[in-house]
Amino acid sequence: MNNQKRQMNLGAFFMIPGHHVASWRHPESPTEQILSFDLYRKLAETAERGKFDMIFFADGYAVNDRNGVGIEQSVNVRPDPLTLLAALAAVTKHIGLAATASTTYNEPFHLARKFATIDHLSGGRSAWNVVTSSSEEEALNFSKEHHLQHGLRYERAEEFVDVVRKLWDSWEDDALQINKESARFADPNLVHRLNHKGNWFSIKGPLNISRPVQGHSVIIQAGSSEAGKELAAKTAEVIFTAWQTIGEAQAFYRDVKGRLKKYGRTEESLKIMPGVFPVIGRTEKEANEKKQQLIELIPEKVGVGLLSSLISFDLSGYPVDEPLPELPGINDINGAKTRFQLIKDLGDRENLTIRQLYQRVAGARGHREIKGTPVQIADQLQEWFENGAADGFNIMPPYLPGGLEDFVDLVIPELQNRGLFREEYTGRTLRDHLGLLRPANHFEKIKGDYYDTIRN
Amino acid sequence: MNNQKRQMNLGAFFMIPGHHVASWRHPESPTEQILSFDLYRKLAETAERGKFDMIFFADGYAVNDRNGVGIEQSVNVRPDPLTLLAALAAVTKHIGLAATASTTYNEPFHLARKFATIDHLSGGRSAWNVVTSSSEEEALNFSKEHHLQHGLRYERAEEFVDVVRKLWDSWEDDALQINKESARFADPNLVHRLNHKGNWFSIKGPLNISRPVQGHSVIIQAGSSEAGKELAAKTAEVIFTAWQTIGEAQAFYRDVKGRLKKYGRTEESLKIMPGVFPVIGRTEKEANEKKQQLIELIPEKVGVGLLSSLISFDLSGYPVDEPLPELPGINDINGAKTRFQLIKDLGDRENLTIRQLYQRVAGARGHREIKGTPVQIADQLQEWFENGAADGFNIMPPYLPGGLEDFVDLVIPELQNRGLFREEYTGRTLRDHLGLLRPANHFEKIKGDYYDTIRN
Repeated sequence: MNNQKRQMNLGAFFMIPGHHVASWRHPESPTEQILSFDLYRKLAETAERGKFDMIFFADGYAVNDRNGVGIEQSVNVRPDPLTLLAALAAVTKHIGLAATASTTYNEPFHLARKFATIDHLSGGRSAWNVVTSSSEEEALNFSKEHHLQHGLRYERAEEFVDVVRKLWDSWEDDALQINKESARFADPNLVHRLNHKGNWFSIKGPLNISRPVQGHSVIIQAGSSEAGKELAAKTAEVIFTAWQTIGEAQAFYRDVKGRLKKYGRTEESLKIMPGVFPVIGRTEKEANEKKQQLIELIPEKVGVGLLSSLISFDLSGYPVDEPLPELPGINDINGAKTRFQLIKDLGDRENLTIRQLYQRVAGARGHREIKGTPVQIADQLQEWFENGAADGFNIMPPYLPGGLEDFVDLVIPELQNRGLFREEYTGRTLRDHLGLLRPANHFEKIKGDYYDTIRN
Repeated sequence: MNNQKRQMNLGAFFMIPGHHVASWRHPESPTEQILSFDLYRKLAETAERGKFDMIFFADGYAVNDRNGVGIEQSVNVRPDPLTLLAALAAVTKHIGLAATASTTYNEPFHLARKFATIDHLSGGRSAWNVVTSSSEEEALNFSKEHHLQHGLRYERAEEFVDVVRKLWDSWEDDALQINKESARFADPNLVHRLNHKGNWFSIKGPLNISRPVQGHSVIIQAGSSEAGKELAAKTAEVIFTAWQTIGEAQAFYRDVKGRLKKYGRTEESLKIMPGVFPVIGRTEKEANEKKQQLIELIPEKVGVGLLSSLISFDLSGYPVDEPLPELPGINDINGAKTRFQLIKDLGDRENLTIRQLYQRVAGARGHREIKGTPVQIADQLQEWFENGAADGFNIMPPYLPGGLEDFVDLVIPELQNRGLFREEYTGRTLRDHLGLLRPANHFEKIKGDYYDTIRN
């Protein structure tokens, strides 16, 4: 491994039918297939052909009628990602399968079990992107009057992830014996009660499925607030993050990697993969035209609505060709705090009008846009990768499947030629692809101390 | 349709790795594959080859350490059924896909969305078996101190199903317009808020996936208590039920079908499919030997534990070769009341010891056992089907895949020869297979009255 050049990890991130808010209007977008399995099978097969580490589906639990035109002019229907991942497990062989699920509106037992199931059915390819949700609307679909406050969401998330991991560990790796002769299906000494009683959950356990092939599904996290960084340093194995400049990305990289030691973790145990929004042309001119085509497809109210939603502040009353108005302080935002700051800074730095700003973020949604020829795209990825800003990237195609096909057919070969990306899958599980260790089992670790087996 | 002979509906019901409690010890059982997708793919393909209406996975949210030996001597791990169904949707074309999900430990928004997703991905083949859960153990995995009392469970279930149906209806069939030119993705006048506020749930809606291909997933129900029968008459489209004698089955059939009228429903809108546990031999002698082989594989404590669990009463202190002790009244049972009565009656009627009773129920678990040659099996199904006791059957193979293969290869051709079962799939959706209408949309029905679109 030491003789081999360090290679980047790549995730294919799918907003459907594309990361750009107007992607559904793109002439090549198969938007009418948005709920058909054929589209998703094609996306997964294309990403697997490109040797991506994983595909990844974003999620949320409410429609967003942004600026009163969201229902009419943007995309508000999508498959449930965990359900979709299971279907894609059946038609892929190598690629990792990641989905977002919120700790604010789920039960640990259900999520632990669903990810464990996907991990078993796929032979060890599952990953969970832990989010705490960021919209008021979601609370109203779950019999809650208000969205939980930011700090409490993170408290709940930390306990949630801890419980899920213990549920995954509740059947030790050797628990299943399946000895027909002696009628011994499992060794009860290797099956554990959690008897967890915390501030948020009381869970007896064990889970009713044995330990995932990977030990635990790979844990992904995206929040970059102070609370988000601490949770990530404690629990995450991959961070999807959003930075515009290499300086910001390097500072974040150093900051989070520096927090690992106090949790007894190595720097290699956490992969930092910033999001990038690639606009790829065979020439610079073609890339610019592709970008312009998407910009012109954005309905004005949708643009303003998306920007409002990204910064958790309603801009619909303000003149669209003027700069941002005075915004509330970051402490008064009960949404994604880092994204708020990032977009506000971008507007201030380049003195952009509301229209210019929504045109800018309607694609990348706060992530870094990289535009140009395949060589230029590879240059930009390489620069961050080799200068302490990233372990890999989360690729967010503007529209699908075209934007993904361009990346696979044009950029990946360029990265492979430079020795920066794999030519073939060499491992079997997503942990193998990412270079992450299989986690130790909580209940094995505490043996010798008191612990509950199913017998106690 | 009137010229054609009435045909039965068949479901393939999968306890894994077989309905018989000792199935995992059967020499032909691929028990070590219990979490591998290959086994499930094979089961689904075999059932589809047999032209079954649907496959069906039971479920529960806790392990059962019955009689202190359940973990060691019986099967307590299984895939999450909804996750599994999605994977099977990807590798099948015709067969319906049904799974159990409890209204006591889930959120309506999540379940509505997951079943809608399976329905879209499969082209209209999903079904939901609505249960209220029957064990105390499950409560302890969901931060609850006690399992909800029987009556309250049914109140919650009724509201839950109502809300799920409205969520499925929240995007009318024509809501998606996908007009790229005019930037009209959806017609907001055809998208509806629920603004539901009930005793159990407050749900704003709409769902974030459009109406299922089938309008609604097919609703299955199994409870046969008074509350269960009322809920079924109001909401179910298929009933899986358990009867030992044709007289009981006929009385139940008449009772439930008779309740439909007051809810404005026809008798054809509800299919009654009793469970049967088929033990199939090429000769009677072979069938008897197969049964005996399974009986001998039951560990004594597992047998007593299973029986205790089926009647929600702990028999572990009682002499195993004596009849049942005095049992509590049915009103003091907070489990599956009908099953309790059924098993108690069976023990009384035939004066069985505890051992004889567990040997009897360890296979069928309260359902009807049919044993014999393919011709004898077909005779027994035909008798019930043609005499007002059943619209079809829920087939519960003793062990898998062998028990299913026997049914498909030996019994189905006999039923087909008699004109009692389809030779090919003629419809596209599970509703087509079952002869069930696509349901009207709640929000279309109330047009003219006040109703909430997303605009109000």
